[in-house]
Amino acid sequence: MVQKLKIGAAGLGRMGKRHAVNFLHRTPRAELVAAFTPDQAELAWARENLEPYGVTLYTDYDQMINHPGLQAVVIATVTKVHADEAIAAINKNLHVLCEKPISLSLEKSREVVTAAQNKPHLKVMCGFSRRFDSSYRDAFEKAEAGLIGRPSIIRSQTCDKHDPSGFFVKYAALNGGCFVDMSVHDIDLAMWFFGDDSVVKSVSASGITAVSPELAEHGDCDNAVGIVEFWGGRIAYFYNSRMMAHGQEDTTEIIGTGGKITVNGNPQANFVNYYGPQGITREVPAHYYGRFEQAFVAEVNEFTAAALDNMKLPLKLTGAVQAVQIGSYLQEALNTGKKLYFDESGRRIDQQPKL
Amino acid sequence: MVQKLKIGAAGLGRMGKRHAVNFLHRTPRAELVAAFTPDQAELAWARENLEPYGVTLYTDYDQMINHPGLQAVVIATVTKVHADEAIAAINKNLHVLCEKPISLSLEKSREVVTAAQNKPHLKVMCGFSRRFDSSYRDAFEKAEAGLIGRPSIIRSQTCDKHDPSGFFVKYAALNGGCFVDMSVHDIDLAMWFFGDDSVVKSVSASGITAVSPELAEHGDCDNAVGIVEFWGGRIAYFYNSRMMAHGQEDTTEIIGTGGKITVNGNPQANFVNYYGPQGITREVPAHYYGRFEQAFVAEVNEFTAAALDNMKLPLKLTGAVQAVQIGSYLQEALNTGKKLYFDESGRRIDQQPKL
Amino acid sequence: MVQKLKIGAAGLGRMGKRHAVNFLHRTPRAELVAAFTPDQAELAWARENLEPYGVTLYTDYDQMINHPGLQAVVIATVTKVHADEAIAAINKNLHVLCEKPISLSLEKSREVVTAAQNKPHLKVMCGFSRRFDSSYRDAFEKAEAGLIGRPSIIRSQTCDKHDPSGFFVKYAALNGGCFVDMSVHDIDLAMWFFGDDSVVKSVSASGITAVSPELAEHGDCDNAVGIVEFWGGRIAYFYNSRMMAHGQEDTTEIIGTGGKITVNGNPQANFVNYYGPQGITREVPAHYYGRFEQAFVAEVNEFTAAALDNMKLPLKLTGAVQAVQIGSYLQEALNTGKKLYFDESGRRIDQQPKL
Amino acid sequence: MVQKLKIGAAGLGRMGKRHAVNFLHRTPRAELVAAFTPDQAELAWARENLEPYGVTLYTDYDQMINHPGLQAVVIATVTKVHADEAIAAINKNLHVLCEKPISLSLEKSREVVTAAQNKPHLKVMCGFSRRFDSSYRDAFEKAEAGLIGRPSIIRSQTCDKHDPSGFFVKYAALNGGCFVDMSVHDIDLAMWFFGDDSVVKSVSASGITAVSPELAEHGDCDNAVGIVEFWGGRIAYFYNSRMMAHGQEDTTEIIGTGGKITVNGNPQANFVNYYGPQGITREVPAHYYGRFEQAFVAEVNEFTAAALDNMKLPLKLTGAVQAVQIGSYLQEALNTGKKLYFDESGRRIDQQPKL
Repeated sequence: MVQKLKIGAAGLGRMGKRHAVNFLHRTPRAELVAAFTPDQAELAWARENLEPYGVTLYTDYDQMINHPGLQAVVIATVTKVHADEAIAAINKNLHVLCEKPISLSLEKSREVVTAAQNKPHLKVMCGFSRRFDSSYRDAFEKAEAGLIGRPSIIRSQTCDKHDPSGFFVKYAALNGGCFVDMSVHDIDLAMWFFGDDSVVKSVSASGITAVSPELAEHGDCDNAVGIVEFWGGRIAYFYNSRMMAHGQEDTTEIIGTGGKITVNGNPQANFVNYYGPQGITREVPAHYYGRFEQAFVAEVNEFTAAALDNMKLPLKLTGAVQAVQIGSYLQEALNTGKKLYFDESGRRIDQQPKL
Repeated sequence: MVQKLKIGAAGLGRMGKRHAVNFLHRTPRAELVAAFTPDQAELAWARENLEPYGVTLYTDYDQMINHPGLQAVVIATVTKVHADEAIAAINKNLHVLCEKPISLSLEKSREVVTAAQNKPHLKVMCGFSRRFDSSYRDAFEKAEAGLIGRPSIIRSQTCDKHDPSGFFVKYAALNGGCFVDMSVHDIDLAMWFFGDDSVVKSVSASGITAVSPELAEHGDCDNAVGIVEFWGGRIAYFYNSRMMAHGQEDTTEIIGTGGKITVNGNPQANFVNYYGPQGITREVPAHYYGRFEQAFVAEVNEFTAAALDNMKLPLKLTGAVQAVQIGSYLQEALNTGKKLYFDESGRRIDQQPKL
Repeated sequence: MVQKLKIGAAGLGRMGKRHAVNFLHRTPRAELVAAFTPDQAELAWARENLEPYGVTLYTDYDQMINHPGLQAVVIATVTKVHADEAIAAINKNLHVLCEKPISLSLEKSREVVTAAQNKPHLKVMCGFSRRFDSSYRDAFEKAEAGLIGRPSIIRSQTCDKHDPSGFFVKYAALNGGCFVDMSVHDIDLAMWFFGDDSVVKSVSASGITAVSPELAEHGDCDNAVGIVEFWGGRIAYFYNSRMMAHGQEDTTEIIGTGGKITVNGNPQANFVNYYGPQGITREVPAHYYGRFEQAFVAEVNEFTAAALDNMKLPLKLTGAVQAVQIGSYLQEALNTGKKLYFDESGRRIDQQPKL
Repeated sequence: MVQKLKIGAAGLGRMGKRHAVNFLHRTPRAELVAAFTPDQAELAWARENLEPYGVTLYTDYDQMINHPGLQAVVIATVTKVHADEAIAAINKNLHVLCEKPISLSLEKSREVVTAAQNKPHLKVMCGFSRRFDSSYRDAFEKAEAGLIGRPSIIRSQTCDKHDPSGFFVKYAALNGGCFVDMSVHDIDLAMWFFGDDSVVKSVSASGITAVSPELAEHGDCDNAVGIVEFWGGRIAYFYNSRMMAHGQEDTTEIIGTGGKITVNGNPQANFVNYYGPQGITREVPAHYYGRFEQAFVAEVNEFTAAALDNMKLPLKLTGAVQAVQIGSYLQEALNTGKKLYFDESGRRIDQQPKL
């Protein structure tokens, strides 16, 4: 019989539910044996959707990671406990798949990195789902194959459908701001295509509160634009918005010296077009899961394979920390209105060095 | 614990493998307990991919359908044994999901229909995968909602990437011809959108052998066009081809009195576009599974749910027979060069009735 | 000083106005010196729009073609007088650009051809505007260059926006039916891409009256589909409709043994897309002139150049007759419900020859 | 007889030739009576293409503006003489259509504005061609109609096809830099959609020399990104590039609180798509004139109508100066690496005011 990775799911909120179901039903080599949530509504959902498949439910994280035979955890709780839960799991010799970000605190993030480095046999990954998306992967392979020359400019945006309920405004206080919460994906893509060793040279950003003025209290924006210049002649520029009327629109352009690749330049929910008096219309996914569902499935399967077969993970834990770091720089540039500068070693300096 | 449908897979060829894997790993409420194939290569594949997950392998169909506790079979063997295997399974009180077509013989097909009708508690379905595709379903819902008025004209095509190996030419002798093998999907779509009770009024067709002249020996074509006129003022026209250079292109237009819906008017493999000296290029799926994979997953899950919960199947077995029937008419029109006529009860007549 | 072609415009209806204006303002080497119309409303328009630019107006065609120094006429009067006016002009040694069709009568059409052949120094052209469209020309050059192998299948459609005023229904009595009036453009394209010497092998057609039932009185349809099979392994299939909700949609696919070219697969009025709650929408031209305006400008300029420089015209007068001929076959197949057959010399026969 | 505007063309370089031909052949209400160029090659072209149509040729600008009966000039000479030629023409009571920019010097530009203001009966316009493009106009009308709520974010790019000849590098020394030469169009669009009274709050920019390192000598870049923040909660961000492999790609997004409009999100040379082994490919215009030809035609016709009928021009001369001003700020931000700040009256300040 095939050997399956015994995994426990921590946190059963929006994304936690999806991870749990994906490990339960869409990961042939994994077996979801345990799940933890302190939340009664989530627990009720788990009684109906997980327990009938033999999953043991816990309301205490420490009890769950002591579940007999457990080999791994997926962490999708609230951000502020990610790091401590990850470290606790690592200390129990469990592989860890952690939702982004590991932490809004860089110190805390580095503690997780250190803990993971002390247990090199463990697989510890922070999930940047777009790295597992087949379109982004195709784009990366094309770029790697030299199809567009040297990637030099990246434009990437994370744009959410406007949610008039104001849900995300409450959430804004906890998420580190729009560049850390949203653009962090685009930053990670830039590091992927430009190389993990790219060093930031300058950072500038501007933002507005066009539909959610109450965000200003949190020092956040509902639309923001930022430029990250790297040493070596590369620029990434980002746009994030929570104001889209039509749906989710996460678009990336990788522009090289010999060509260009776009990913999702024309968002679409499916293959249907409606031709009527208005013209020709296609719909757009309302949420990121509509766009990236299969990427999340690939992510949990690849994490499982890496853990079972002791294979290299497709992305480094340090990269996840770096992306949050750059997101924080952008957020600082946004909040202070200042442009930030860095020397060739990445150290913060006062002004742009002579060109 | 959740109750799962115990199912056996008959035939592990190209499509059989996919069904087996989908029941095994992507159908939460089903349990693949058995698989049958008379083929050694397929058996070797099953030893590696199915047996480790607890699937019992058989080289005899009758033994497999006697597997203890078996509740259902999925039949993906060669076409000529579909009907007999389906009837044997029905007689064993097993639910049946059968690959299309049930049979190239209408008599044989009707025997299966009769057998199924005699066991109304069983779910017997012939899989037309496009009925489970989310885009086609969205199109159907929009049409049902009246968005395009009365559907009046359907254009639908099944176009395969050219296979220079000549694989399908050998296969051509067994598959009933291009309209039965390929356009049958488009015919089924026409019946879905026009209504299952639509009655054929006339049939005409023309074809050529542009890249595979040896097909002429089998009375078949590599490109063919057909028109099916229905009583009540509706027309479906079809194109099938095995000559596409770019990949699979299965496109449908439903044209109503008040608008039009297209499905897959712009085929694409993913969300990537490459901008280079040639202009802007996107790739296209090479095969139908690249386009319809998720539809096949939906199909096995819905079949499972219908069997477990005694729910109505999303398509009727008689419809599958009817689609093959119309495909055969088109094939006859193609081979004889004659236009065929039918009266309002669907009975064949010699010439077009007065308009 | 540059020498300009002195031309007169006969008929100032919808298309006549456009030709007159194009010769007046958008044809550097032509000079519109005269215009004829028997219609008072058209005459009033001409007083305002042509006369101030020095154009002499006539209410009698014969007087106009005697205008001093006249070298050419463009004929855009009602179809039934095209042929006689063309012959009268030819007899006056005038070059002739005649709107399609020359005549609904083949005999009459051939009289014009004969008249033209008797004056080989004159340029006599029947305008098929799509031959002058830059996209169709690019497609033709690509096909000529061998990009798609041997063109084998053509799908082409002429689909008009639904006009609820019923204007075209009245007009239907005079225009020869939907295949002669609309699909004749698509037929001409098929002859262009397949070669002018292509010989029809069979013709079949079906049609409905979905939104304009009163068309049935004229033996016409508002949606019709037809197949024209040619000797030598080529098929063209056509769709015409007057029922589009979204606008004009004239689309062509040329499918070869090594690739495919589409023209206007994605109709669009301009480069604007509107992203709103409905999804993403683009508009479509409401009429054929919105799609083909520049083609009409090219047409009059090239006709002018051919007349002034005694150059070859880009399309043959006999081709225009042939396209109407095939349109008439399709119309007969539509009206009788019969499939028509032809031998390899193009002669009508009773049934399909043995394959 | 219709009265025509007698116009002279100054400068017959790439754009000058086009203006001359457009006034000569595509502007019914204008008459090109004179043309000036000091260049022998251009003069030879004019002898062949203008003189035969009755255009008098001059090698001295002052002589040309004294051409008997002259009413207007179009200036398309080298940038550095635009302003003096415009002023000389205004002093002669001639209407002026001047290619952008009026001048790289703001003082000089303002002299032209003053000269024009002193002769209010004259029409003096600096051509921003995109204001005359039918797609941009449709976008503007949709925005004006409230379709997207309040326009809040604009993304706009001017991207040229890479010219390996290095032609533009030589030219770079004279054109004021990439933001002044290229992005000035996008800046003008931002002012159009946001309102001419929008006041800049901050400016930042970054650039690289990816394919033309020699540009660095001129303090210029071949790829640059800039952000212009306006008081009142609006942001425009720009990208310019001279590195495109595929062709010209001038794209604009106008993002409002209730929707979004894109212009040219999917560049295309025509309506042709080629389907081959590579997938599906469409071509892109190689140059801006391939995209904007009809806009230039509209421009000269509207200028002519405004002059003849004493109507308001569609854009203000001061706006053209303002766009160059903002372009210069971006260029300064690019060259110094500094972020620039402005107070609510538009006056330069040292640092971002408190939010």
